[in-house]
Amino acid sequence: MKALPLPEVYALLEPGPVVLLTTARKNRPNVMTMSWHMMVEFEPPLVACICSGANYSFDALRTTGECVIAIPSRKLAATVVKVGNCSGRDTDKFKAFGLTPLPASRVRAPLIAECFANLECKVVDKRMMNRYNMFVLEVVQAWRDPKQKNPKTIHHHGYGKFVVDGAAITLKSKMR
Amino acid sequence: MKALPLPEVYALLEPGPVVLLTTARKNRPNVMTMSWHMMVEFEPPLVACICSGANYSFDALRTTGECVIAIPSRKLAATVVKVGNCSGRDTDKFKAFGLTPLPASRVRAPLIAECFANLECKVVDKRMMNRYNMFVLEVVQAWRDPKQKNPKTIHHHGYGKFVVDGAAITLKSKMR
Repeated sequence: MKALPLPEVYALLEPGPVVLLTTARKNRPNVMTMSWHMMVEFEPPLVACICSGANYSFDALRTTGECVIAIPSRKLAATVVKVGNCSGRDTDKFKAFGLTPLPASRVRAPLIAECFANLECKVVDKRMMNRYNMFVLEVVQAWRDPKQKNPKTIHHHGYGKFVVDGAAITLKSKMR
Repeated sequence: MKALPLPEVYALLEPGPVVLLTTARKNRPNVMTMSWHMMVEFEPPLVACICSGANYSFDALRTTGECVIAIPSRKLAATVVKVGNCSGRDTDKFKAFGLTPLPASRVRAPLIAECFANLECKVVDKRMMNRYNMFVLEVVQAWRDPKQKNPKTIHHHGYGKFVVDGAAITLKSKMR
């Protein structure tokens, strides 16, 4: 993994990819699948996400205040679904699905070696947690795997239907 | 436009498409381009979005408490960029870019005839508005154009680069 400048983080999340979210509570790493997230600010990169209180990761995120957002490409789609279909309460998902945890630099939650990008995050705002299960995260360190060129991300349409990135088009724009 | 059941709304926004957001202030319709949004709840469908205070739409959204999220397909990409590159302060964007406003049923903001889906929204939470420019919206009525079959949405990667929906894959999943 190579460090990615923080101002470039938004371009990874703004397109709406399915991501994996890792946590570590009492030194036990866990991972969940997440599609409800959005950019909130460019710099420092702030990200809002919804992590349902029914998820085992909710308490880990709430109590540790740390996580990693790992972005999988299309080749991990089957794994992403398996991760989403079971709970860390009774499954060591890293072991069960062959995901490799790597130590992060600023948080205890692990990076995922197989993902093409990893964003180390700290919870900076829990005001919307009780009402909406919403956390605001600050990305404090970002990594990108230079070996994965032009990874295609996946976008969830519900009930296991995913659309994979297709053609890229570039239009003259002033929009960042 | 045909009414779309509200429980199906999430599958439109969860994949992260670029959307258009319309408002109407003092009977003057306006439209902006937006990529920072996420689902917050399935039913009733709640959506969080970031509308920068620098946008002309911010005040319209804040004061009227209403908007429409209109979802364009790939064929509108050039228009989407033009909408994002100018301001309603000095431009009638509907006229300038050939977009057709249609009356909505529950809000004063207009639908956009050319978009394949339109979501009428009311602002239900402004607690995060001052700090993050964040609004929580409730979708109160949804519409889909049955004439646009399998529309491909676009996803913004920054500076006018968009990725168009590619192949769809379906994996056995318990995830809604």
